[in-house]
Amino acid sequence: MKLTTAFLAGLLCATGAISQENPIIHDGEYEFLRAQVGETWDAQDIEIDARLAELREANGGAPPNILYVLIDDVSFGMLGNRAMNYVTGIDTPNINELASEGMSLMRMYTEPSCTPTRTAMLTGRHPVRAGVEEVKVALVGEGLAAEEVTIAEILKQAGYNTAHVGKWHQGDIEQSYPHNQGFDWAAFPTHQQVQLSLMTREAMQANNMIGFDPSGQTNPFAIDQRFKPYGLVTGLEGEAGSLAREVDMEAGEVWTQAKYRDMNERYQRQALEQLNSLAAKDDPFFLQYWPLYPLNFVYDQEQQTSRNGGYMAEKLELLDMWLGDLFNEVDKLGIADNTVVMLMADNGIFNYYAPAQSGFMELIYRGGKTDHLEGGVRTDAFIRWPGAIEAGSTAGDIVHVSDLFTTFARLGNATDFIPRDRVIDGVDQTALLLQGEGNSRRDYVYVYEGPVLRSVVKQEFKMHLPPPGLPGAAAKTFNILRDPREESSQIGIALWAGAAFQDMVKRHALTIAKHPHLPLGKGVPYEGIENLRPESILAREVFASWH
Amino acid sequence: MKLTTAFLAGLLCATGAISQENPIIHDGEYEFLRAQVGETWDAQDIEIDARLAELREANGGAPPNILYVLIDDVSFGMLGNRAMNYVTGIDTPNINELASEGMSLMRMYTEPSCTPTRTAMLTGRHPVRAGVEEVKVALVGEGLAAEEVTIAEILKQAGYNTAHVGKWHQGDIEQSYPHNQGFDWAAFPTHQQVQLSLMTREAMQANNMIGFDPSGQTNPFAIDQRFKPYGLVTGLEGEAGSLAREVDMEAGEVWTQAKYRDMNERYQRQALEQLNSLAAKDDPFFLQYWPLYPLNFVYDQEQQTSRNGGYMAEKLELLDMWLGDLFNEVDKLGIADNTVVMLMADNGIFNYYAPAQSGFMELIYRGGKTDHLEGGVRTDAFIRWPGAIEAGSTAGDIVHVSDLFTTFARLGNATDFIPRDRVIDGVDQTALLLQGEGNSRRDYVYVYEGPVLRSVVKQEFKMHLPPPGLPGAAAKTFNILRDPREESSQIGIALWAGAAFQDMVKRHALTIAKHPHLPLGKGVPYEGIENLRPESILAREVFASWH
Repeated sequence: MKLTTAFLAGLLCATGAISQENPIIHDGEYEFLRAQVGETWDAQDIEIDARLAELREANGGAPPNILYVLIDDVSFGMLGNRAMNYVTGIDTPNINELASEGMSLMRMYTEPSCTPTRTAMLTGRHPVRAGVEEVKVALVGEGLAAEEVTIAEILKQAGYNTAHVGKWHQGDIEQSYPHNQGFDWAAFPTHQQVQLSLMTREAMQANNMIGFDPSGQTNPFAIDQRFKPYGLVTGLEGEAGSLAREVDMEAGEVWTQAKYRDMNERYQRQALEQLNSLAAKDDPFFLQYWPLYPLNFVYDQEQQTSRNGGYMAEKLELLDMWLGDLFNEVDKLGIADNTVVMLMADNGIFNYYAPAQSGFMELIYRGGKTDHLEGGVRTDAFIRWPGAIEAGSTAGDIVHVSDLFTTFARLGNATDFIPRDRVIDGVDQTALLLQGEGNSRRDYVYVYEGPVLRSVVKQEFKMHLPPPGLPGAAAKTFNILRDPREESSQIGIALWAGAAFQDMVKRHALTIAKHPHLPLGKGVPYEGIENLRPESILAREVFASWH
Repeated sequence: MKLTTAFLAGLLCATGAISQENPIIHDGEYEFLRAQVGETWDAQDIEIDARLAELREANGGAPPNILYVLIDDVSFGMLGNRAMNYVTGIDTPNINELASEGMSLMRMYTEPSCTPTRTAMLTGRHPVRAGVEEVKVALVGEGLAAEEVTIAEILKQAGYNTAHVGKWHQGDIEQSYPHNQGFDWAAFPTHQQVQLSLMTREAMQANNMIGFDPSGQTNPFAIDQRFKPYGLVTGLEGEAGSLAREVDMEAGEVWTQAKYRDMNERYQRQALEQLNSLAAKDDPFFLQYWPLYPLNFVYDQEQQTSRNGGYMAEKLELLDMWLGDLFNEVDKLGIADNTVVMLMADNGIFNYYAPAQSGFMELIYRGGKTDHLEGGVRTDAFIRWPGAIEAGSTAGDIVHVSDLFTTFARLGNATDFIPRDRVIDGVDQTALLLQGEGNSRRDYVYVYEGPVLRSVVKQEFKMHLPPPGLPGAAAKTFNILRDPREESSQIGIALWAGAAFQDMVKRHALTIAKHPHLPLGKGVPYEGIENLRPESILAREVFASWH
């Protein structure tokens, strides 16, 4: 195995999770825990460093490959659990098998929507710290700032080859594109599935996207011909240091459901291709596959095959089959033992469209995408690393999606490359993975909706923060184990936990005061694309006319 | 092994599930299915008879023992599923293990409350056919009629020894007692847990049972001193053909939470004792253990041990431990291979008391005890028979609790003893158990609340019947897979399924017209008890004063 210089540098310095000489800046709440149990963690970190070194040694000196699959908009319980497959009528046998081969993280929290969850994973930070909210389906001239440091950039510094395939949703400006954010190669749609699967004639005919397609109605009194999003860029591909190129879309061509299906199939194919080419290289790899399915709003098959039959349910079963192919490929390539495979969802269901037609439903937890309720931010999550993570294990510990940043960095022997000049919310969960349940380094989560802190979670308790101006006594407080649907606020909890929760909020606010949020990246939309279609150029001009 | 005469008689005649010469009278809906697929079933029954004969042969000619555990008031998903244990914070490792050793029935329907579910299981009939509704906590002079034929009577005719331990709840008249309904021996409380765990001073202090305990308040203006139930009989024990005896209760003694705990511990001990003594006998046995726990309304330990901590959650964990002891005893006795072990719940949670204090919550399905909603009538159910039922298997087929009557009869080679003069709603599910998923003989359920038909279920569809007088178009219709909480009625289903559901109701109504319901058993309360306390005698006199 060829070892790069950066990679050797990583091997030479002892990279404990938190070097106390040059510590990572964490949230006040984490420091509050560290003051209580930091010595235990430090002792444990010595063991963990030894174990990671041992694992690298068994792998010719290299840290493991990482294959990270992020699925869009799925209810907690839909993935990885045969009994729940019976409840939903949606079978996920391949994901269930992955779950049985690794650890099930039973309490993974995300952000409540696509863009923020992905930002949190990429940067290890609550997206609010990077100015990120949801990115809308229109030209915005905004996106993940170049100043943010992604897990891909960090792993690259430690010698990894990196690639991204599928949904990205971090903005329409050049600096935000994945190949400009640490990925050697990327294939991704510029926007998201609202454009790709809803802004079509078929979605109009399916009564889902109303009023967008011009064949659906006429209005002779309309003046504004740019009220409807127009000329949006679709799928891009790009290499680090090069311009991106829009693929499979000609000038003047109309986007259709068939093109959406083709795009999904292409990403599946490209994920397999990337896996193969990355596995053939000497250095370890970090491969992200973020499918667009199961998001889908049209019946586009002759015959549905699931018992559920909903148009999203069908795509989830298809995706499960595709992921089975991907995981099998890991095995076939002979790299399973040296590859961390992780699969999770980005947030709860897109419940504006559930349940009758989509087949997707609220299950245990109330709420869905965009909600701070557990149904919005709790997702199924499974992580496999044969020989390192116990097969078939489960962990009830709290984990937040930002923890993957810090944890993947440590697994990749790249902790030293985590920036020390900004707050990192993600805590290192390597102890949980290697030593099992009960070893999480957080028992709290801050839950944002966009820029607004809406809930605080501590252990089994959760407080919904009162609207601005109302006193703390107006806050609803729940025991998530006894009341998973957050329907029955308990004054008996609030009266002791209210003050404790308010202290938690203060610790978080103090951190923000000390380390103010950074701005969202700004720029001209669609720069850095070499073959922009005339309609996209026009769209950019329209955008410039009022910007 | 000694073979009784009745048992030999059973061996000599070929007892197909439905002998067409002397058929069981089933509901019109079943006959409607039989007209479509009866030939397939008949062919399958020949295989099944051969397989059952083979299994008996391997067991010295005897059919299997049956141990049937029925748990009170638990949400679907609380039992047998490690992932769901994380959602609830209630661990059920022993029940989970049982589930993994047998078949999980993923779509078991019960009646929506304790008494009717138990009647359905005992008689194979919707309780309405026997005049049974819920039995209240007071003297009623009513109960399961002597004319009803229970599964215990049927198995007894086929040579089984029979015993019942725990909750019974089939009435306060002599003919309804278990030892008068086919059980050789029984230990059971006359009434139910509202008496035993709520009508106490402790439950008043826990703010659950309000106004019952005289130490809670005074009312100098009260005239009626018999408004509150008084002098209720508690735990009885009896043998077939003998009088019952009230145990562990002296004249004038006040019932307490401590006595309730003692009663639960006694039943657990007696279940183990019965298992041992029945296993030592030559003939096969049918043992019912129907625990009173997890129903409980007081924190009565120094330290809660579950993560959930609710006063019912605690008792469910305790019960899981006890059941582990019971199942281990089956193994230790060396009878595991010849013993069908089944465990299920009788209906959804007692949600008047959920969730904050009890720790019990709605999970996936909406509703609880007394509701026709899935949360009221869907329960976890697991059945183990090593070598005959595939370990770790699951079945998404619809099953109704009344099917156990017909199925246990067939497993016990006792189908011929099922009465042919009344409707039997329970269908034979032996094919499902032995040949696996997809072999249920029903794809429908009628859901009653007391005497009122409230819902009809067919395949993945469910119609809530409109109130009397409203047209069928007012009926709400759901797809249970896409909308497990029955929150979003779909006209798109109703418009084709409405007529089909109405036909289902007609087929059921026609059967009732041909075979009218039988009356509930009536009598004098508390007859057949040899040591009635003076206060119980007084209670009976008070009851007689207006009856």
